[in-house]
Amino acid sequence: MIEFIRGYVDYICPEYIVIDHNGIGYEIFTPNPFAFEESREAAVTVYTYEYVREDVHALYGFLTREERNLFAKLLQVSGIGPKGGLAILAAGRPDELARAIEEENEAFLCKFPGVGKKTARQMILDLKGKLTMFSMPTAPRPAASLSGELAEAIAALKALGYAEREIEKIIPALREETMSTEQYVKRALAMLLK
Amino acid sequence: MIEFIRGYVDYICPEYIVIDHNGIGYEIFTPNPFAFEESREAAVTVYTYEYVREDVHALYGFLTREERNLFAKLLQVSGIGPKGGLAILAAGRPDELARAIEEENEAFLCKFPGVGKKTARQMILDLKGKLTMFSMPTAPRPAASLSGELAEAIAALKALGYAEREIEKIIPALREETMSTEQYVKRALAMLLK
Amino acid sequence: MIEFIRGYVDYICPEYIVIDHNGIGYEIFTPNPFAFEESREAAVTVYTYEYVREDVHALYGFLTREERNLFAKLLQVSGIGPKGGLAILAAGRPDELARAIEEENEAFLCKFPGVGKKTARQMILDLKGKLTMFSMPTAPRPAASLSGELAEAIAALKALGYAEREIEKIIPALREETMSTEQYVKRALAMLLK
Amino acid sequence: MIEFIRGYVDYICPEYIVIDHNGIGYEIFTPNPFAFEESREAAVTVYTYEYVREDVHALYGFLTREERNLFAKLLQVSGIGPKGGLAILAAGRPDELARAIEEENEAFLCKFPGVGKKTARQMILDLKGKLTMFSMPTAPRPAASLSGELAEAIAALKALGYAEREIEKIIPALREETMSTEQYVKRALAMLLK
Repeated sequence: MIEFIRGYVDYICPEYIVIDHNGIGYEIFTPNPFAFEESREAAVTVYTYEYVREDVHALYGFLTREERNLFAKLLQVSGIGPKGGLAILAAGRPDELARAIEEENEAFLCKFPGVGKKTARQMILDLKGKLTMFSMPTAPRPAASLSGELAEAIAALKALGYAEREIEKIIPALREETMSTEQYVKRALAMLLK
Repeated sequence: MIEFIRGYVDYICPEYIVIDHNGIGYEIFTPNPFAFEESREAAVTVYTYEYVREDVHALYGFLTREERNLFAKLLQVSGIGPKGGLAILAAGRPDELARAIEEENEAFLCKFPGVGKKTARQMILDLKGKLTMFSMPTAPRPAASLSGELAEAIAALKALGYAEREIEKIIPALREETMSTEQYVKRALAMLLK
Repeated sequence: MIEFIRGYVDYICPEYIVIDHNGIGYEIFTPNPFAFEESREAAVTVYTYEYVREDVHALYGFLTREERNLFAKLLQVSGIGPKGGLAILAAGRPDELARAIEEENEAFLCKFPGVGKKTARQMILDLKGKLTMFSMPTAPRPAASLSGELAEAIAALKALGYAEREIEKIIPALREETMSTEQYVKRALAMLLK
Repeated sequence: MIEFIRGYVDYICPEYIVIDHNGIGYEIFTPNPFAFEESREAAVTVYTYEYVREDVHALYGFLTREERNLFAKLLQVSGIGPKGGLAILAAGRPDELARAIEEENEAFLCKFPGVGKKTARQMILDLKGKLTMFSMPTAPRPAASLSGELAEAIAALKALGYAEREIEKIIPALREETMSTEQYVKRALAMLLK
């Protein structure tokens, strides 16, 4: 629910930091709490993942949104919990992690604490092809002929649950037009619900 | 618990948007995130439904309170979860949805992703007669002789759990008077608890 | 966790109100939502009870702290949920409710929706003697010889789990002195932990 | 999630206090609520522990961060719940508690309400050696030759899940250098992931 908190570093200890946001202190577990020593003077934005279980309500925080989103993807891998996810991100090299997964480099993945052969294979199985935005500087276009707006619209339709084959049918008609992402989504929904 | 959030659109991706409210970013899943591209410059109010499960604490958001309340009603239909509810509302035509349910138009309902015959019938069973506020411009008066205040008071008594037949008994006496909604409620409670 | 919210009434419907607190709207279920029509112009303080279950995170709100605390006590009675608690408080006469419980007046209690003989007896069993602050204008002193501060200190010791008989032993020594509540608590703890 | 709240004492009763933070009142259970009588005039910072269970979402608060962290450790002992933890801290002598645990003084521990022989032994078993920061004015260095920064870095690596024997191997090389805590952590991770 909470995706970032802007405030001042109030406390640092080996497990977490505390960010003071207008007089409320938020306890945030981070890969390397002492990396925030340098941010003591100015307000800092920490991108947070809210971890909710029956008896846990905790925030995990990162200096970039990309690391935060990578952490969220790591937690979807069975066998990786928040502590394991932090340890993997503590090495601070999302691009190397993404490449190791794309290249199915189990040996590299097994170096992280708590990651054995089984978890390494599960990471590759679950995440291969889904971390392209971390291994490349900018998210690659799925195909040269699709504009950024159309590509975003297609991703939004998939997020809504429309099947790939349904979407494939209407792409030719959509590609004829030049619109904003939102207009592409509206046009597509109208065609899908005809 | 949180019914709306006012702030600035900070981030848009195919699944959700992030609204910056005084330095705290709220991750909000919406039917069409890219519809918020136009609201980047000014503060926007997003009407939110707080979805709570053992391991989920998420906000689903809408540009109008009516859509937000329709989403809440859709979630009461067994077989429809938040993702299904978003897909139904993404088409952005609450009045057509309400009419399809009132007219028991299963074919129209089955066009939404994840809605088959069984769920379509369940929607009709659970929601028929309860979406009148979406199919009509303004909430219809239950009967020409009841004033708006008295109608609201009756709805409040039902919300408190008083049975229809108990309320029916005291309507004739209440209809004789002209009061505010709150006064009608107080008078009715006094009569019911005599 | 949240015990009151101060803000402006933004929306009223038969089941709940929405209070706007600095741009965040809080959905609050109240006994009589339309009673807030009068508070539209100025900021209002609503005393809230946060109801948490596996799939529910809701606020129940009241115009006074006494009603809020009475609601909390009603929820401790097995057979009374939030909806039943609201209906009981909707009649808006905590003192009559307290007197009915003290006088074991089952007939009066059975008038509330959802309260039958069994629940009425459970209310009397669980709450008799515990609602004195509602039936009297001010909380009665347990015994003329105990000062307000000492009475408060004794209540605090009970809240910490110290048994009645342990506390009884040290009251004579404490009664010899005149202190603030906090000093009485500190002195008592020192004596209890000797 | 919430580690401190700064605001004004709005209400005190034997079980809890209410802190007004910009118009939202937070209900906070504390060892000795009446100790806050003195803080009525100025804003006070209460260090909070957020206790989350399926049907509970409560804040427990303390005047110092050390007490708050000691409370968190006490809750890790099986047999000690929040109420027991408050009663233990109500005596207000963390150093005496830490010494009693280090010296395995069961008799002293059994004086606290709700603590019998079994719980006293469990406290000693679970906490011995882990409360040194409470019994000494400042956290002792693990070994004279480790600088504060290196000691903090080692604690951070342990928090990430690296095994003691892995860390022992790289300490000699790290001890050769003089860096900030964060640089030590980065260097260590690089060495551990080689």
